[in-house]
Amino acid sequence: MKKEKLPIGIFDSGVGGLTVFKEVAGLLPHEDIIYLGDTARVPYGARSPQTIIKYSQDITSFLLRQGIKLLVVACNTSSAVSLPSLKKANDIPIIGVIEPGARRAAEMTQNKRVGVIGTEGTVKSRAYEQAIQGIDQRIKVVSRACPLFVPLAEEGWVENEVARLTAQSYLRPLCEEAIDTLVLGCTHYPLLEGIIREIMGDGVCLVNSAQETAKEVQRVLEEEKLTAPGKKNESYTFYVTDNAERFIRVGERFLGRKLRSVKEIS
Amino acid sequence: MKKEKLPIGIFDSGVGGLTVFKEVAGLLPHEDIIYLGDTARVPYGARSPQTIIKYSQDITSFLLRQGIKLLVVACNTSSAVSLPSLKKANDIPIIGVIEPGARRAAEMTQNKRVGVIGTEGTVKSRAYEQAIQGIDQRIKVVSRACPLFVPLAEEGWVENEVARLTAQSYLRPLCEEAIDTLVLGCTHYPLLEGIIREIMGDGVCLVNSAQETAKEVQRVLEEEKLTAPGKKNESYTFYVTDNAERFIRVGERFLGRKLRSVKEIS
Repeated sequence: MKKEKLPIGIFDSGVGGLTVFKEVAGLLPHEDIIYLGDTARVPYGARSPQTIIKYSQDITSFLLRQGIKLLVVACNTSSAVSLPSLKKANDIPIIGVIEPGARRAAEMTQNKRVGVIGTEGTVKSRAYEQAIQGIDQRIKVVSRACPLFVPLAEEGWVENEVARLTAQSYLRPLCEEAIDTLVLGCTHYPLLEGIIREIMGDGVCLVNSAQETAKEVQRVLEEEKLTAPGKKNESYTFYVTDNAERFIRVGERFLGRKLRSVKEIS
Repeated sequence: MKKEKLPIGIFDSGVGGLTVFKEVAGLLPHEDIIYLGDTARVPYGARSPQTIIKYSQDITSFLLRQGIKLLVVACNTSSAVSLPSLKKANDIPIIGVIEPGARRAAEMTQNKRVGVIGTEGTVKSRAYEQAIQGIDQRIKVVSRACPLFVPLAEEGWVENEVARLTAQSYLRPLCEEAIDTLVLGCTHYPLLEGIIREIMGDGVCLVNSAQETAKEVQRVLEEEKLTAPGKKNESYTFYVTDNAERFIRVGERFLGRKLRSVKEIS
């Protein structure tokens, strides 16, 4: 098969990366996509770097065996920790979710004060901070872990009072830091975008890493001449490593549409 | 070494089982204890039965190699799913957290209406329902998954407004069922006992599975003549499969005391 006809591979520790899948599929409707959610080993956020690197390489090897032309690491924790070693060990373009979000934040901030919210693992890795300051070291980055946002998103509690109070508790300290840009540094967080916007106010630009990553995928495909030729029916395949039933139930809420062809692998 | 001098083994998918450790150590101060938290593979709650059984046997084999005289499966999900196969495959007394809690609930209920709260996995397994109705089939059991309780407990949000609203949302339907007994069917939930009691009211008896399990351990040790001889210094060892730093931080909040001798294994 011609290389450009191969699918794009996307992996995440679970359902969260479906927000990235949604943006990629929306922006590049002619591309086939294989998505893998490592639901047997979710969440990566609280795991150690060695463990995350091992899991990520296992999955990359599996996707390469299926045949993919480009890999998206749609997991902030894995992007933060394992991207350098994945790029070194594998011979296709690999795109994480940190760089695109960081670049957009550096572009958007006027007052050079950027907030980043994510899982404990992502925040502890300081990956966004390093990426943003690598672009412009005058930018001050204030980070905050929001551990309850993931279970809230998975429970579908994204607009109720519990979500609102939780978001207030996590975000108030960031409001006080007078940031003008906030990176949603976890794939689940776009589901809570409404409430986050309400609390942060219109003066703060929200950076959705999933959207920025999709634009980066488009750019790299064009650059590498890997864009799929136009055709009628795109093909999407979903693999999970455990509990397909739950992936489908929660995932359909994330995507806002039916999930078909979900296969369980070990 | 004489068998009764061997430690008790306790395992859980993570830190939650420390509530069971606390009760066992409190009731049986002369016993040595080895605790294993499978933090690399937490949470078990959303995983499939085959996966949970495999993980549980791996850990049991590890603890048996360390030398233990009795095993406590301090994880509701694993107790619900893997206890029969663990008992069949291993030759020491094995105690889960479901049976002791179920027995207590059946004893306490007057109106024969019992509520059970737990993770998605525990509720879906219907293990409490089966255990309670195995004792008295006239008892009506109403179950409810409370997925946000675990992250709330780990975040230390056990008495704030977010915890209160979340608990109200989960528990109101149980109040309407006119239950007179409620089983806290997840090891994390005793941390939220104050707020659960506030919402359920004094008319509802709360069954703390951790306490009931400790009593069962005491009973079985006496029955099998395995009770440790009195001595001055008990020894506690903690193993985790990932991220000891987080286990210590969250675990100290669970135990209300310093955690020493935490070893990371793979």
